Amino acid sequence: MSSHVFDQAIALELQPDGTFAGHTSADYANMVGPFGGISAAQMMNAVLLHPQRLGEPVSLTINFAAALAHGTFIIDARPARTNRSTQHWVIDVRQNGETVLTGTAFTALRRDTWSVDEEPMPQCPPPNQVPIGRGPAPVEWVKQYDMRPLAGAMPTVWDGSGDNSLTQLWVRDNPPRPLDFASLTALSDVFFPRVFVRRATLVPVGTVTMTVYFHADSAQLQASGSSHLLAQARAQAFRNGYFDHTAQLWNEAGVLLATTHQVVYYKN
Amino acid sequence: MSSHVFDQAIALELQPDGTFAGHTSADYANMVGPFGGISAAQMMNAVLLHPQRLGEPVSLTINFAAALAHGTFIIDARPARTNRSTQHWVIDVRQNGETVLTGTAFTALRRDTWSVDEEPMPQCPPPNQVPIGRGPAPVEWVKQYDMRPLAGAMPTVWDGSGDNSLTQLWVRDNPPRPLDFASLTALSDVFFPRVFVRRATLVPVGTVTMTVYFHADSAQLQASGSSHLLAQARAQAFRNGYFDHTAQLWNEAGVLLATTHQVVYYKN
Repeated sequence: MSSHVFDQAIALELQPDGTFAGHTSADYANMVGPFGGISAAQMMNAVLLHPQRLGEPVSLTINFAAALAHGTFIIDARPARTNRSTQHWVIDVRQNGETVLTGTAFTALRRDTWSVDEEPMPQCPPPNQVPIGRGPAPVEWVKQYDMRPLAGAMPTVWDGSGDNSLTQLWVRDNPPRPLDFASLTALSDVFFPRVFVRRATLVPVGTVTMTVYFHADSAQLQASGSSHLLAQARAQAFRNGYFDHTAQLWNEAGVLLATTHQVVYYKN
Repeated sequence: MSSHVFDQAIALELQPDGTFAGHTSADYANMVGPFGGISAAQMMNAVLLHPQRLGEPVSLTINFAAALAHGTFIIDARPARTNRSTQHWVIDVRQNGETVLTGTAFTALRRDTWSVDEEPMPQCPPPNQVPIGRGPAPVEWVKQYDMRPLAGAMPTVWDGSGDNSLTQLWVRDNPPRPLDFASLTALSDVFFPRVFVRRATLVPVGTVTMTVYFHADSAQLQASGSSHLLAQARAQAFRNGYFDHTAQLWNEAGVLLATTHQVVYYKN
């Protein structure tokens, strides 16, 4: 097994009944429970490791039903329907017999077709010209990422002065690690809550659902190596306890690797 | 029961085992199988009608695992986790014992909080100043909607000349029907495939997954009445057989009611 902290965190053990056993990682701890991105990566990894998998990930939805307790969990990833070149997955993560995460995924054998990126990578200086920023909070998981904010960094003054929620940053695993579907899944949740930057106000928050669309195949991920990704997110609406965000991740060459969306609970 | 064609199409019958029985609707037929939006609305309706439901819909993800055959289906909507004010749903739709749709939903009791819309409604003429457009295809379901294209209408010449995938239209049920969660779910799938407008080329297509985030609660939907919604969609990437789109729906007053995303298969 790779000694990279990320590989240790997403390691799973196939059980005799076809489920996978995993363990929360202290290295990816968040305020309450683990970093959502590492839970999503563990879920994705159960599909990737599954002996019946057909093709590569195209989409993943994960719902955060309850905070995971520190310790072991069971991932039950089941192919609900397998077609000639596509497969639909239903995923359930349990602790002590109770569901803590639910999810669905779609994998497919992809073929070369006419292709074009419509959402261009924003113009910005290269990562080596952007200083590493302070993490969004004094929690463990942010130490596992090299984050270089370009716009909409974590506020330093909490005076309610925010007027938009756009964040752009360069980001990669720390230490560097070659990009793959599992790490891209985790990176899709790297954004601190949009409500912090929009309001410059700290309020209790928690992601309730996240969806990732993978535009890249494994060859394109491999070609991205371990270099930084440009990650961009902004909210579309904050309304009565829940806001959404819509986000994109490009590699340094400007290829759109993934688009991702989530809904986050907020108080007040 | 309402005599509106939409209510007839989403009607479900609770079975002794707690599942719901439904029937595909000839009024919402698409090229192959039903309009995806009506399947999504039927799935949403199973959650809405469920005796154990807590709160109102905040998110729904539906995965189109196989084309539904004309006839009856069973919806198994199960609350996988119920918290104090939130609930996570796992949904399975079967025909002849085989899964044809999978899904998850999140419902919650919402409270009044600080709120703001960040994505503004585009400037455009009111619906009564925009002529009704021709439907995207000679299929039944488009007759059930009043669509008034503002930008990115279905191409009339298929010459490969497209250069972007943005579509904006006014849309409502035809005949008019007061907006609710089920109809907003269906309206979230009202966009014809982005690849048609981007390429001005007809290719085989099919949605594989769709997620809807509901920003409005039932009172805000009720306040929208039966007037038109402004619906906007555009793709972010077309890559090797799959493209995504990201979309928004506002009511005439400019309130962002829902944001929605999907991945669509395309050939060539």
